Amino acid sequence: MRVDFSEAVNELKNADDILILCHRNPDGDTLGSGFALLRALKSMGKRARLSCDDKIPSKFSYLYEGVENEDFEEKFIVSVDVAERKLLGERYNELYGERVDLSFDHHGTARLFAKKTYCESESASACEILFGVIEALGVEIDNKIADCLYTGMSTDTGCFRYSNVTPRTHRIAAELIEKGADHTGINIKMFETKSMNSIMLEKLCLQSLEFYAEGRVAVITVTKDMLESCNCDKSDLDAIKPITRQIEGVEIGLTVKQEDNGKTGISVRTSENYDASLICAHFGGGGHARAAGCEMKCTPEEAKNKTVAFILESLL
Amino acid sequence: MRVDFSEAVNELKNADDILILCHRNPDGDTLGSGFALLRALKSMGKRARLSCDDKIPSKFSYLYEGVENEDFEEKFIVSVDVAERKLLGERYNELYGERVDLSFDHHGTARLFAKKTYCESESASACEILFGVIEALGVEIDNKIADCLYTGMSTDTGCFRYSNVTPRTHRIAAELIEKGADHTGINIKMFETKSMNSIMLEKLCLQSLEFYAEGRVAVITVTKDMLESCNCDKSDLDAIKPITRQIEGVEIGLTVKQEDNGKTGISVRTSENYDASLICAHFGGGGHARAAGCEMKCTPEEAKNKTVAFILESLL
Repeated sequence: MRVDFSEAVNELKNADDILILCHRNPDGDTLGSGFALLRALKSMGKRARLSCDDKIPSKFSYLYEGVENEDFEEKFIVSVDVAERKLLGERYNELYGERVDLSFDHHGTARLFAKKTYCESESASACEILFGVIEALGVEIDNKIADCLYTGMSTDTGCFRYSNVTPRTHRIAAELIEKGADHTGINIKMFETKSMNSIMLEKLCLQSLEFYAEGRVAVITVTKDMLESCNCDKSDLDAIKPITRQIEGVEIGLTVKQEDNGKTGISVRTSENYDASLICAHFGGGGHARAAGCEMKCTPEEAKNKTVAFILESLL
Repeated sequence: MRVDFSEAVNELKNADDILILCHRNPDGDTLGSGFALLRALKSMGKRARLSCDDKIPSKFSYLYEGVENEDFEEKFIVSVDVAERKLLGERYNELYGERVDLSFDHHGTARLFAKKTYCESESASACEILFGVIEALGVEIDNKIADCLYTGMSTDTGCFRYSNVTPRTHRIAAELIEKGADHTGINIKMFETKSMNSIMLEKLCLQSLEFYAEGRVAVITVTKDMLESCNCDKSDLDAIKPITRQIEGVEIGLTVKQEDNGKTGISVRTSENYDASLICAHFGGGGHARAAGCEMKCTPEEAKNKTVAFILESLL
């Protein structure tokens, strides 16, 4: 069930012993909004902890600095930036998928898996929503909460670069900087630093780059061997996914990734002429208009061929 | 002489037949503030034109779309984003260097070469200043002026990434988007587009990447063959030079480039622990503390070995 802003805030006000869930492959927005909410709830005297099915990448450690993750039996479960149950991760979907009380989300494709969902699809990030939520909870946003919220706003917009940015996005960023967000340090960590492993991965990915339809479609293929040989994990692919679409003339960029259990994931990025979420919906996935994803039970080569064939036949 | 904001605005109000000068190697900020001012002055019924000693790169053509550059004898000269006379360019410094009536600048190092200078060094860009100036002139900021101002604000801050961004920067960006700035299109043009040639060059450069001193020194080597095979020229190397230093743990990044006539150029980028200009000075070159260059009469392999040897022996 969808609820309005004040009902969502009231749910939180009345809750205690709260478990906050982030999505699998956690990024700056799910972690930023999750830890901002965790800090806010704790400052209200509530018991709360945050959990994620996947390991939190070390570059995000500043988000939880000084926060104790308490152990207790959860009475209320809230998810942040989780568009559908299965994005909780395989284990967590099984454990918590039917038990989420409240979901905060900003995806247009949000499935209403929680008992109550507050979704603002015009928000560039979940953190943009949580900024309002935390203010409505009556919590003073300190520099640590500001760091968390700024992180999600910056990472989900490519540092205020993408079309999801609105005047409100900039105005909230202004307030967060005033409240002490270390915007410069966060942006250096998120955007200007590449690990040696990830640069080696980039090298291999560029070697796999292929073009179709006179350069309007570009594909990067990433196998498990490639990831392992660079000592990289799935989170390192976030930096790879935008590459294809950034090439002049490319309208649809695909990153094909070999998953476990004989599956292959496809990440799709598009120019404004094509809808990435429609391409992925054809294969049972979803997402945003400019960035979406889907998964297939086949080899990377087969998944690539299917996706490219669909694009060539139906779109170009 | 330094003047305050209202005096600078009054100078413009009282002026006519105005020549606006940008700095040489024009970038998004000098052009964005120049064309925003040009459009504003014309909408006030004044005669004005913009000029630059160097050619305006074609990617900025949207800034002057629909603007007629009138021919007249200038009675008033205003420079934008020009920190010192010689940055007008060699010819323009000679022609106009002593005749500039009013300068708008945001550089802490601004030299007061104009009769009157209005400088806000806390502004992230000249466009941030011109936003206030144009409002104070009583001109309604339309979507074209908004495009111009957004361009300089975005390019001079690395798209709101650098430490020069303040809350005001974000608030003005919000207003410009409301006034119709095509922020998404501008950012794609300025930041998100790589030519297919330059991405192929990046691939080859990453293949050449080597590390020394446990990853504290990284080297990319670019031969003439590599540039030719990608149909690239020297200007495409601007995107390559920062790569080495952005790798986690790298303190000194070298880009070794084969030149004509048996020469090799070395571009050095350093973290704040090392001075790039000192490394280059040892080989007869120079530059800034974080970015410098030098040239040697030898093969790329020899130049690389000499430079790495000097760094290992003298610095690390």
